[in-house]
Amino acid sequence: MAERKLWPGADAPPVWDAVPDWLSRRADTHPDHDALCLQGRRVTYRELHRSASALAQRLQAVGVRAGERVALLARDGGLFAVAVHALMQLRAVLLPLNVRLAPPEMGFQLADAGVRLLLHDEHTREAASLAAQAVRDLAGGGEGGERVELWELTDAVWRNRASGPVAAADENLVRLADPLAVMYTSGTTGVPKGAVLTYGNFWWSALTSAVQLGLDPSDRWLVPMPLFHVGGLSVLIRSVIYGTTAVVHDSFDADAVNSAIDSDGITLVSVVPTMLDRMLDRRGGRPYPAHLRCVLLGGAAASRHLLERCQALGVPVAQSYGLTEATSQVATLQPRDGLRKLGSSGKPLPATEVRIVRADGSPAGVGEPGEIVVRGPTVTPGYWRRPEETRNAIRNGWLHTGDIGCLDAEGYLYVLDRRRDLIVSGGENVYPAEVESVLCAHPSVEEAGVVAMDDPVWGQVPAAFVVLRPGGRADEQELRAFCRDRLAGYKVPKRFLFVERLPRNASGKLLRRKLSEWLHTQPITGSPST
Amino acid sequence: MAERKLWPGADAPPVWDAVPDWLSRRADTHPDHDALCLQGRRVTYRELHRSASALAQRLQAVGVRAGERVALLARDGGLFAVAVHALMQLRAVLLPLNVRLAPPEMGFQLADAGVRLLLHDEHTREAASLAAQAVRDLAGGGEGGERVELWELTDAVWRNRASGPVAAADENLVRLADPLAVMYTSGTTGVPKGAVLTYGNFWWSALTSAVQLGLDPSDRWLVPMPLFHVGGLSVLIRSVIYGTTAVVHDSFDADAVNSAIDSDGITLVSVVPTMLDRMLDRRGGRPYPAHLRCVLLGGAAASRHLLERCQALGVPVAQSYGLTEATSQVATLQPRDGLRKLGSSGKPLPATEVRIVRADGSPAGVGEPGEIVVRGPTVTPGYWRRPEETRNAIRNGWLHTGDIGCLDAEGYLYVLDRRRDLIVSGGENVYPAEVESVLCAHPSVEEAGVVAMDDPVWGQVPAAFVVLRPGGRADEQELRAFCRDRLAGYKVPKRFLFVERLPRNASGKLLRRKLSEWLHTQPITGSPST
Repeated sequence: MAERKLWPGADAPPVWDAVPDWLSRRADTHPDHDALCLQGRRVTYRELHRSASALAQRLQAVGVRAGERVALLARDGGLFAVAVHALMQLRAVLLPLNVRLAPPEMGFQLADAGVRLLLHDEHTREAASLAAQAVRDLAGGGEGGERVELWELTDAVWRNRASGPVAAADENLVRLADPLAVMYTSGTTGVPKGAVLTYGNFWWSALTSAVQLGLDPSDRWLVPMPLFHVGGLSVLIRSVIYGTTAVVHDSFDADAVNSAIDSDGITLVSVVPTMLDRMLDRRGGRPYPAHLRCVLLGGAAASRHLLERCQALGVPVAQSYGLTEATSQVATLQPRDGLRKLGSSGKPLPATEVRIVRADGSPAGVGEPGEIVVRGPTVTPGYWRRPEETRNAIRNGWLHTGDIGCLDAEGYLYVLDRRRDLIVSGGENVYPAEVESVLCAHPSVEEAGVVAMDDPVWGQVPAAFVVLRPGGRADEQELRAFCRDRLAGYKVPKRFLFVERLPRNASGKLLRRKLSEWLHTQPITGSPST
Repeated sequence: MAERKLWPGADAPPVWDAVPDWLSRRADTHPDHDALCLQGRRVTYRELHRSASALAQRLQAVGVRAGERVALLARDGGLFAVAVHALMQLRAVLLPLNVRLAPPEMGFQLADAGVRLLLHDEHTREAASLAAQAVRDLAGGGEGGERVELWELTDAVWRNRASGPVAAADENLVRLADPLAVMYTSGTTGVPKGAVLTYGNFWWSALTSAVQLGLDPSDRWLVPMPLFHVGGLSVLIRSVIYGTTAVVHDSFDADAVNSAIDSDGITLVSVVPTMLDRMLDRRGGRPYPAHLRCVLLGGAAASRHLLERCQALGVPVAQSYGLTEATSQVATLQPRDGLRKLGSSGKPLPATEVRIVRADGSPAGVGEPGEIVVRGPTVTPGYWRRPEETRNAIRNGWLHTGDIGCLDAEGYLYVLDRRRDLIVSGGENVYPAEVESVLCAHPSVEEAGVVAMDDPVWGQVPAAFVVLRPGGRADEQELRAFCRDRLAGYKVPKRFLFVERLPRNASGKLLRRKLSEWLHTQPITGSPST
């Protein structure tokens, strides 16, 4: 519109597409501030910048260049972090590998993304070697296949100093449209696809999350979660955007987390519900210090029981809904709304839009379940080298998550389930999470997982896997009666299987496919298996 | 670069260019949270949204449309705020008028921006009418000239309710490239030009300022400064982006500000140095409450004396450097650095770059004064209908501020002076602020302003206007000796003029041009004039 122009014939004002390099800026503004607190090592922004620059120079010397995908497989959080920053300095694209994957799964990702170099640490040396072999096998076997070079990261990175500027970072700006990472989405649904996340995705996620959760320049954000998932990686990256401190634990230990919160000045911590459960178990009712201002709960929906337990202890829990394709956080429930909106994931980040749509694409009504679709600057531009899957997932800018949710009359998001887990029984829809939530409300039940079981009459019926609390004594009859009192008949599980624990992936997501397999391998029993 | 693409032939990932409408979003996420605290009225986000929507509908009904410039001249902060939001809903472009301007000055801005409608309140009814007449006079006099319609805002806006959606805001997104306001830069230099500030300018200013200053969801930001300047307006707008509260005082009263800080939960306050001086005077040494986490000091550089006084009282002062063309804040000194870097304006916002350049455009060395140039997403795309001035001011994306500054060895910005105030004496450069800073360090001196005085021998020499503290008894001889001990001979003022107060504009900026006039109209005297 001519009226919006500065003068007739003027160009439209620019949309900003580059920002000063994050780590260089923080080495300038916060040189002596802690960038990382590792178990046994503190790293200032000056030190992190120097170490990352030195590693970047060495990687550049072996030919790593902007846009190239480089894989990272490391258990050591400090080495993981310095490698991430080195790759960012080169504008190479990070492919973080889940350390729990089997070699063929890693090989698939390496081949799919065209990786030539795999960075690892001493703990993952063997796995890296097997993964590289798996790529050769995929390419036809033997030495004639695609070759992935290995590079072992060691503590020497902390002693290295860059000998000059890194060429690719000369301009000292990062372009928001450039890819920062390719992250393969969790194997709980279908074939893994590499979601490409740009610098802009992480930049917007960091800034709009700060509006959602608040930001204190003295924040120390504890990540006892894997850095290879988006929940951990995004904390690493947002800390450098903010100039705050990321506190990294290489693995989850409830006592270590509790102790860090008490004595290491932790202000925020990212956990999944099972971790929080264990933290509270180990805590024994002792309150957390006031400086802990937010426990960000992701990966899976917390049970009503867990949220009530947190309410009782005054733990400031922010339940969130997020996914890899949206650079983690999409919506967050403010701690103050925890009780009023128990079970909700709250409201979207300020630049993010969330809608619920029916199968025909029309908007769902208040309280009506439908597919959660997401639009905004944190949404991936697409899947690496997969135009068709990308067109399928992102339509008119809206990411179709495959997750089922609804909005209440006040616009609060409730995540009901993963679409593919929907149980259709005699034409009625059964949402497993709803059934699980009822089961978890039983005083003897610790957790529950519900899946579809084939049925000659109804097509599918729900079956429930149940973990009892220590001392819990409910049997099938009692639980069935408990559900019948609270649910429509078709939602009540037709089978109850009592197990020691539920299968979850590294981010705490329930592996329903595994539960479905258990249906066929575990003896079906009507009473506790122990 | 092909390697950065998602797949061969793919488009580059998008740079995000629109975000959900700010006020609509806050009415959704924070309906019952205070949006505004006015003197005598609290307005929630739901109420502000309703009132602004109703006003937007009425303005739309008289033909106001997207991209049209609409002027706003109001002393009532609440009416000012609701008008700003109504214009934003229509995507009309706000032209905020300084209430202190004379009618011909207002008329110039109205005519220059092609304004058809001028919103005012009861306090500015007459001024608005005179301004409209001035536009007719400019256009050739009488009724035949350009016609500016007047529209009086009254408290009825708080009772109005929108009767339906506002057409222009249907899509419910704001495009970051769209202009939000045209702000005429202060008359201290040359002819006023209308700096166009976009939604993106304000959005990035808000988000990156949050990184700089921190953000607490319960923040209450007090603005006792005029809302028609960018310092006030940007607080109004960032509050709605954050979902926090703007506390607006219609005029500055040191006691009212002190009292609001004590009893109205103020966490941040924006003031200019003279205001802070008066606040401390009235406070009598009583400490401020701990919830006051930041006093953002803008508009002018604080004297060393004032900063030391704040240090002594533990007032968390953040000295900032900003200008209209950069949507206020460019760089900020963290309160913790106040003593170590006394007199500095700190480091730039995280998406903003600051450099010091010589007259030939080459970068100045450490400590070497030069022109301050600024690049980043808060910088105006240009001046309204002034391609030549725009090309002059913004070169390769760098805004040439005309201000003189330097960076120390750690990269901290020191603002030395406005370029046009540079005094050149016998080939040596004299920066007035440096001389003023020395004078202000004298125990008897309250404030001082230094300007060039013509001299037959040296071309120019500095002359000083001095305001003494109550009870201060320094005379010319003593001050000259004081300066001679601390400055090179050519920097010592050749004349001292003792005055009651210095001329400043509404944002506290020293009006040096006025001082230069005083040189010729005031009797030159070597002893206090009182």
